[in-house]
Amino acid sequence: MFGVTILGNNSALPAYDRHPTAQLVTLNEQLFLIDCGEGTQMQISRYRIRHSKIGHIFISHLHGDHYFGLIGLITSMGLLGREHPLNLYGPAALIEIIELQLKVANTTLPFPLLFHPLENEGLILDHPKYSVSCFETKHRIPCWGFLISEKRNPRKIIREKVIEYGVPAAFYDFLKKGDDYISKSGDIVSNELVTIANLPDSSYAYCADTRYTESIAEKVMNANLLYHETTYLKDLEERAITRFHSTTIQAANFALKANAQKLLIGHFSSKYEKLDEFLQETKSVFHHTELAIEGVSYRID
Amino acid sequence: MFGVTILGNNSALPAYDRHPTAQLVTLNEQLFLIDCGEGTQMQISRYRIRHSKIGHIFISHLHGDHYFGLIGLITSMGLLGREHPLNLYGPAALIEIIELQLKVANTTLPFPLLFHPLENEGLILDHPKYSVSCFETKHRIPCWGFLISEKRNPRKIIREKVIEYGVPAAFYDFLKKGDDYISKSGDIVSNELVTIANLPDSSYAYCADTRYTESIAEKVMNANLLYHETTYLKDLEERAITRFHSTTIQAANFALKANAQKLLIGHFSSKYEKLDEFLQETKSVFHHTELAIEGVSYRID
Repeated sequence: MFGVTILGNNSALPAYDRHPTAQLVTLNEQLFLIDCGEGTQMQISRYRIRHSKIGHIFISHLHGDHYFGLIGLITSMGLLGREHPLNLYGPAALIEIIELQLKVANTTLPFPLLFHPLENEGLILDHPKYSVSCFETKHRIPCWGFLISEKRNPRKIIREKVIEYGVPAAFYDFLKKGDDYISKSGDIVSNELVTIANLPDSSYAYCADTRYTESIAEKVMNANLLYHETTYLKDLEERAITRFHSTTIQAANFALKANAQKLLIGHFSSKYEKLDEFLQETKSVFHHTELAIEGVSYRID
Repeated sequence: MFGVTILGNNSALPAYDRHPTAQLVTLNEQLFLIDCGEGTQMQISRYRIRHSKIGHIFISHLHGDHYFGLIGLITSMGLLGREHPLNLYGPAALIEIIELQLKVANTTLPFPLLFHPLENEGLILDHPKYSVSCFETKHRIPCWGFLISEKRNPRKIIREKVIEYGVPAAFYDFLKKGDDYISKSGDIVSNELVTIANLPDSSYAYCADTRYTESIAEKVMNANLLYHETTYLKDLEERAITRFHSTTIQAANFALKANAQKLLIGHFSSKYEKLDEFLQETKSVFHHTELAIEGVSYRID
């Protein structure tokens, strides 16, 4: 299971019961939280998510609608007796703010808070089953996007062939990685005889807040699901440029450039009560588009 | 109109759709916000309050459930183009946190944020029609309670008497303050002949987070409405002492000591889903008690 649940889809100000940005990525048993606007801990409760399962939090940038809920969530985890480590990734100044807030409250967290400052583009988390990398977007202040990939073995076993060639089950994991099998008698069973190519890794690209920037597309090529902000409808392109945000049409063009399978749009301006036009405009250029709706989960693979 | 509207009545963690502490005091055309837990700006919207009318914010202490919503509210006021000054009262470190958060976001507020650090007990705001003073409570970190008083003129005019004695309307304001009237011909009309004593000033006492402490009662004597926390029911008195909080019975005894007209209780622990017992226990000692319920306004005068 690889998917993303939207906890907040609004920009800047909360409005119409839409909340500031927060997204929860589920990857097997892992929960990754991306951004954490004010009220995220309430949204987590509302959708009955167990925040103890969140192992990694990624903060894109230090505009409040992307992190003002973080200190509350961390403090609540502490009050509820969390003991296992929490990994936090974000701009360097984030930890300064959190440490100051813990200090004035005379609070010591009962769990290790492991902070990883975002400084360079590239891999920030590497696990046998998944990886996370970060890339810079174009925003008014430094801002990071995230690419979360589920790693797949390059090869898939052909059940009847491994039986036919007598490869023992203990060797299957090596076959999946592409190794040939050498029997006790020295016979070589070529990997291609007993496996086929697996699907490529699946990935979720979170493009954070950004002005439309084509060069970012190469960082997130071929994502199964691409999240791109659409703060404004297409008629406000000038405003989008000035404020370092994007429109529907720009997000759709970006998805084409990046060869995304599906596009998820969000970070809607509080000036819009209804969201239908966001979907219509974006779909007119990139058909496989969905609105990021709070409480809804979207499959990635 | 002098009253208080509850925006958050829960302690520490949000739970059962109860929010962390925030209260809005209405005094004529003034709005005072006392404490500002996470989500306060959403609560303000929910109850259709115009936050542009808030001129003064008082933060009791730097535990997160009393101020984590402040930076979001201030930022939103800025995004919505507020230009008139906002007065903020709280422990000195509060402004350090806010300034750091504004700095990393590269945000300049479009309105003056006037910070008044709380350092000594006594008057912190003095206006011809009201005053606010602060006093220390007994909590795990420095914590301040607030006493908001509506000033009344000491004397009220007796309509038929001022006509009978021929006091001109232009002199009524002096009569209300207790002055005698001297006519053009030099006759003295003694104040007592044309006025009666007015009601005393009315006041709201917000006792913030505190361990039961009798000596605080003298700071808030005779309040028309006294807010006192009841984090726990009476059976958890030991826990209340350890954690610098109070029980139902302690709040009731405090209200007796302080000779309060009415008692409002809140800051309920998240361990309690239902609140009925809080009211029953407190009323068994102090009858004129009400539960602080979110969205409800309580008259003070």
